[in-house]
Amino acid sequence: MAATAVLDDDQLTQTFSALANPTRRAILARLAQGEASVGELAEPFAMTLPAISRHIRVLERAGLIVQGQQAQYRPCMIDARPLEVVASWAEQYRVIWEDRFDRLDDYLQQLTDPTEPTDSDHPANRERES
Amino acid sequence: MAATAVLDDDQLTQTFSALANPTRRAILARLAQGEASVGELAEPFAMTLPAISRHIRVLERAGLIVQGQQAQYRPCMIDARPLEVVASWAEQYRVIWEDRFDRLDDYLQQLTDPTEPTDSDHPANRERES
Repeated sequence: MAATAVLDDDQLTQTFSALANPTRRAILARLAQGEASVGELAEPFAMTLPAISRHIRVLERAGLIVQGQQAQYRPCMIDARPLEVVASWAEQYRVIWEDRFDRLDDYLQQLTDPTEPTDSDHPANRERES
Repeated sequence: MAATAVLDDDQLTQTFSALANPTRRAILARLAQGEASVGELAEPFAMTLPAISRHIRVLERAGLIVQGQQAQYRPCMIDARPLEVVASWAEQYRVIWEDRFDRLDDYLQQLTDPTEPTDSDHPANRERES
């Protein structure tokens, strides 16, 4: 198994879509503590078993959980590999959130500052005029 | 501005939802190179301006892009802070994707191994029967 997982664009869409729900994220947080049955997963939520099962199916299709196939005991287990891909994908933007805060702050300031006439808002123009 | 941004559960849902679309992720990748107008963003896609504008609005609502307010020139600019939150959120699961691959492999092996009778697959049952 590769140390760094890679998901194609469709899989990444499916992963983000599965994560775009607070109940499904809570289910993953619970499974991070260890495997659990559907009943155990349903307990902390004011939801019916079928409602929880639907969330589990979405997580399963996204490859985020694996469910046992035995008739008697079907525990759910987290598979965090798609989350590694999500982390790697977001990390691509680290240079922006680390280095560009100041530039963004300047930009937002510029957008909301009513004292500056439009043309001189641009830093290049400001320099030219001073 | 805090070094580590925190989003509440609703905002995280909105961020994941905005990211669950390949065109919107491509728009972010383009804006990571620098600000761009809606027209410039539309160019590489076989999409109408209104269609691109809808994606931009979704990204804007999720706080992932900021659009200039000037009538003449309304460039879009990436705001990567929600992506930092996504990265931090996913990183919580690093211990699982790093340490538990072997356990998951064992589990998957157990699920697909046809030589084990169903009831004795469960470790607790195995102990009870022996």
